[in-house]
Amino acid sequence: MAAIGGVFSVLPTPFTSSGDVDPDSLTRVIDLLLSDGVDGFTALGVTSEVARLTEAERDRVLDTVLTHVHGRVPVVAGATAEGLRTCIEYTRRARHAGSAAVMISPPRMPKINSDAVAKHFAEVASAVDVPIIVQDYPPISGYAMEPALLARIARDVPAARTIKLEDPPTPFKTSRILELTRDLDVRIFGGLGGVFLLEELMAGAAGAMTGFAFPAILVQIVALFRAGRVDEAADAFYRRVPLMRFEFQEGIGMAIRKEVLRRRGAIAHAGIRPPGGTLDDQTRLALDRVLAWADVKV
Amino acid sequence: MAAIGGVFSVLPTPFTSSGDVDPDSLTRVIDLLLSDGVDGFTALGVTSEVARLTEAERDRVLDTVLTHVHGRVPVVAGATAEGLRTCIEYTRRARHAGSAAVMISPPRMPKINSDAVAKHFAEVASAVDVPIIVQDYPPISGYAMEPALLARIARDVPAARTIKLEDPPTPFKTSRILELTRDLDVRIFGGLGGVFLLEELMAGAAGAMTGFAFPAILVQIVALFRAGRVDEAADAFYRRVPLMRFEFQEGIGMAIRKEVLRRRGAIAHAGIRPPGGTLDDQTRLALDRVLAWADVKV
Amino acid sequence: MAAIGGVFSVLPTPFTSSGDVDPDSLTRVIDLLLSDGVDGFTALGVTSEVARLTEAERDRVLDTVLTHVHGRVPVVAGATAEGLRTCIEYTRRARHAGSAAVMISPPRMPKINSDAVAKHFAEVASAVDVPIIVQDYPPISGYAMEPALLARIARDVPAARTIKLEDPPTPFKTSRILELTRDLDVRIFGGLGGVFLLEELMAGAAGAMTGFAFPAILVQIVALFRAGRVDEAADAFYRRVPLMRFEFQEGIGMAIRKEVLRRRGAIAHAGIRPPGGTLDDQTRLALDRVLAWADVKV
Amino acid sequence: MAAIGGVFSVLPTPFTSSGDVDPDSLTRVIDLLLSDGVDGFTALGVTSEVARLTEAERDRVLDTVLTHVHGRVPVVAGATAEGLRTCIEYTRRARHAGSAAVMISPPRMPKINSDAVAKHFAEVASAVDVPIIVQDYPPISGYAMEPALLARIARDVPAARTIKLEDPPTPFKTSRILELTRDLDVRIFGGLGGVFLLEELMAGAAGAMTGFAFPAILVQIVALFRAGRVDEAADAFYRRVPLMRFEFQEGIGMAIRKEVLRRRGAIAHAGIRPPGGTLDDQTRLALDRVLAWADVKV
Repeated sequence: MAAIGGVFSVLPTPFTSSGDVDPDSLTRVIDLLLSDGVDGFTALGVTSEVARLTEAERDRVLDTVLTHVHGRVPVVAGATAEGLRTCIEYTRRARHAGSAAVMISPPRMPKINSDAVAKHFAEVASAVDVPIIVQDYPPISGYAMEPALLARIARDVPAARTIKLEDPPTPFKTSRILELTRDLDVRIFGGLGGVFLLEELMAGAAGAMTGFAFPAILVQIVALFRAGRVDEAADAFYRRVPLMRFEFQEGIGMAIRKEVLRRRGAIAHAGIRPPGGTLDDQTRLALDRVLAWADVKV
Repeated sequence: MAAIGGVFSVLPTPFTSSGDVDPDSLTRVIDLLLSDGVDGFTALGVTSEVARLTEAERDRVLDTVLTHVHGRVPVVAGATAEGLRTCIEYTRRARHAGSAAVMISPPRMPKINSDAVAKHFAEVASAVDVPIIVQDYPPISGYAMEPALLARIARDVPAARTIKLEDPPTPFKTSRILELTRDLDVRIFGGLGGVFLLEELMAGAAGAMTGFAFPAILVQIVALFRAGRVDEAADAFYRRVPLMRFEFQEGIGMAIRKEVLRRRGAIAHAGIRPPGGTLDDQTRLALDRVLAWADVKV
Repeated sequence: MAAIGGVFSVLPTPFTSSGDVDPDSLTRVIDLLLSDGVDGFTALGVTSEVARLTEAERDRVLDTVLTHVHGRVPVVAGATAEGLRTCIEYTRRARHAGSAAVMISPPRMPKINSDAVAKHFAEVASAVDVPIIVQDYPPISGYAMEPALLARIARDVPAARTIKLEDPPTPFKTSRILELTRDLDVRIFGGLGGVFLLEELMAGAAGAMTGFAFPAILVQIVALFRAGRVDEAADAFYRRVPLMRFEFQEGIGMAIRKEVLRRRGAIAHAGIRPPGGTLDDQTRLALDRVLAWADVKV
Repeated sequence: MAAIGGVFSVLPTPFTSSGDVDPDSLTRVIDLLLSDGVDGFTALGVTSEVARLTEAERDRVLDTVLTHVHGRVPVVAGATAEGLRTCIEYTRRARHAGSAAVMISPPRMPKINSDAVAKHFAEVASAVDVPIIVQDYPPISGYAMEPALLARIARDVPAARTIKLEDPPTPFKTSRILELTRDLDVRIFGGLGGVFLLEELMAGAAGAMTGFAFPAILVQIVALFRAGRVDEAADAFYRRVPLMRFEFQEGIGMAIRKEVLRRRGAIAHAGIRPPGGTLDDQTRLALDRVLAWADVKV
């Protein structure tokens, strides 16, 4: 597999008005985001509402994505689980289905520690031959991985040298991790809705992996930055930060994102699964406003 | 269904040395605990390592339990899930399989609030006609339910008037909840390994629901207490508190419990699934000592 | 006292290179921010590093502020404490020293609940006759106040009808609180570095109370918004969101803010007290860039 | 100073019925516990309600303790603070006042990490020449120190080789820390109300530092254990575990403890400072019962 980098879109899981997985909307999202120029997809991520899917739905979503993408870009599959065994099973299924990599967060467990986390990644890597993206998102795992632990995992587990970093301040932490792993080819993706993408790139990040509903903007920023046209990258970034920040609101971010993708014509129904919240009128009005200002086509 | 009360054993999920679910050990545990006199069982609970089971394993474990128990005592099935839809599906499966009730903890979600929690229980109750045991165990759900919320759920959702209370101080909280629900038939089970059973009963609890590996002790305490022989109940309780406390240690409690059930001849292999920890020699020595003192047969 | 509204600057506490409180820098910050047009100040707030001040330093800082402001604008004093008695003492001192109001967060305590929080505010209000700003910032207090609790406090404690809201999503929560308190004159301030100021105003907020180092921008946005010139307010806001967001980074936000105020000539030394962190070169470069783009004079 | 070991009582801070510090009760507590045979005292600890004392009260309490103890046993002073500078100031005051050691927990700070924690202890040690007891009590500091970090601090900071360990499972963690520090003279005290004292001693602990209201029991257990009379130590321990466990209830433990010390004649008024809770009748009845069973004189 080629090294993973650039802009990966974390795919939402669209549902019908009755709450079932909606594969038609999902394939339309894929087409829309491919036309936006993304370098790859991530399915079954946190913002894919993976925690609210059954296992059968997980399989169905991943199959839909892989079949529809059909190798045009690599697909990463979320494989986080509370138990090692389930994590390995998810990883194996993802590998066999054709995923280019899996994304794994530390298992949630009271009294977990750095040794147990490091061992978890080593065991998965030893069980399945597939690249692992280490997801560093403490609100989900309940465990904050220090730069030294991320560096230790990268050193000990060659398959796990890509990090999705979502523990703020992410640019600062990116620098710290890269300082500790200069001799390794560690690749760091920013997340957090793209809200710190420019600064993450300046600190050495390899790209972004997030569900922001206009990834063409991220693609443009990364391309300009890589071309050394940093002023232009920055301008493109700053002008869209208000939108990214608005979409990435705690608690209602997923609902906003789906509403945007509905407006963009990709998904039929913007609902998220309960107990996830719904948007109120004020939030819709504020969304209208920031979309208009950011001058993006919906 | 008769009202649920008395001593319910939360069943461990035994695994073979290769980590598979071990139904033979599970049925032996059931037989052992039935001979200890328990009033019912709870399967797929937190200490059943339910978070480390696949859905197929969940089904297999529940089927094994229901088939083997064969109606001799009621069986409660854990049905907690992060999404309402999955929670309803688990509840429906449990009902169809023959469970007497389900046990449900608030869904884990950032920014959850009391309205969302109350609605979750109401929605499950409206979807499936089965008694619901509300599990109040904040370390798992990440949300502390105040007595007023538990009372509100009991008032609004008649199917959800049984509470498994594991938010210390449990005797004190039992009193507060019962004060707020005097006009309702709310039933509260203590948990926490039985470590506060006597005080919970004094405060009005209906029994205990826990995985303590010697439930005959709990059965005896509850029987004496109900017979008004409180001094004897207290003596039986206090003499076994050292053992209960030892078994119920954070982080290694499940491993100790399985080791005891192995020594009691019920389970073939005491291992828990990674990343769960294992016992060290000092802990085994300390277990030997407290077992000997508590004068229980293993 | 006139009702508190508009833009209140939360003052940093500048230190000398040897770590002592630096009153000269503090008075220069006040002058600078007054020239920026702020409607008031808040001293001894979270970003004032109040948790790292001794009581003597608290008094010195507040005296310096009140003396130098000399009634030109109202001054709010932080009075949060873990114990009610200390909170009342801080409130009393603040009142006697001439503060227009105090700002209080729920006391940090294991097992705290909504009744205890409501009582805390009622007791302070009954002990000291001074307006109370209820600070809703869960990372500091460890307790998330639901809209219903904030409404209950506003209803029961007339002195506590101003809220500093920093529990995202703040615009959404602002709407919920105002819905529950339509018959009361509840006033809500946004915080969070101003990053959602426009949306908070759209939802009905009365202003902003934050330490953002260019409050003139906030003043302009609020003035335009109040004048009904919402498009202009929005434009002024969106163009500065990149800067606000950058300054308001978790973990290093206070260090960035002080660095900006140093560059603006107000404070002699940008250091924060340990264990607070320091800036790295990458963060300084990124700051240079965003300052240049936002076209603000430093 | 002689090495600290054995049984140290963490002193409560008694208050009068009007909520003032009550030095007469405090000195009576000291006399009572000295007659119980304690090896030392700890003042200004968590269960001393130190978070609810003003600085003047801190000084008054420590002076009262040191003056009244008058060198008969060593006194440890709590010196935890959120800022390094305040921590050093507390440490200096404690040293000058005559404390034998200070007890320090990691500073509470968002985004703190192991480097910052290690540095904090090193800086205090370099500023003041006094033994430091590292307090490992995650609920208070918000940071869980892994065995490797505690070993690193012990290695790097010779003054900080005593640990008050309150992160369960404490016997297991004691073993892990001692394994990593075999070449150093690390001394570990159990806490947690004494509820795991026997197992902590078996794992190598040097004693107990807790506020349990009958320290004579702890003294007896430690003496028997050190004399190699482990069976007797265990019997003395197990028979009092029910009482220790009852006293050490989350949320109301301090209130129970003060009530016991009031019954023992030492303190005039058992109240704790708000927002700390008060006991209900059921809890008092349950206390009566467990005291009677444990056969302790009150």
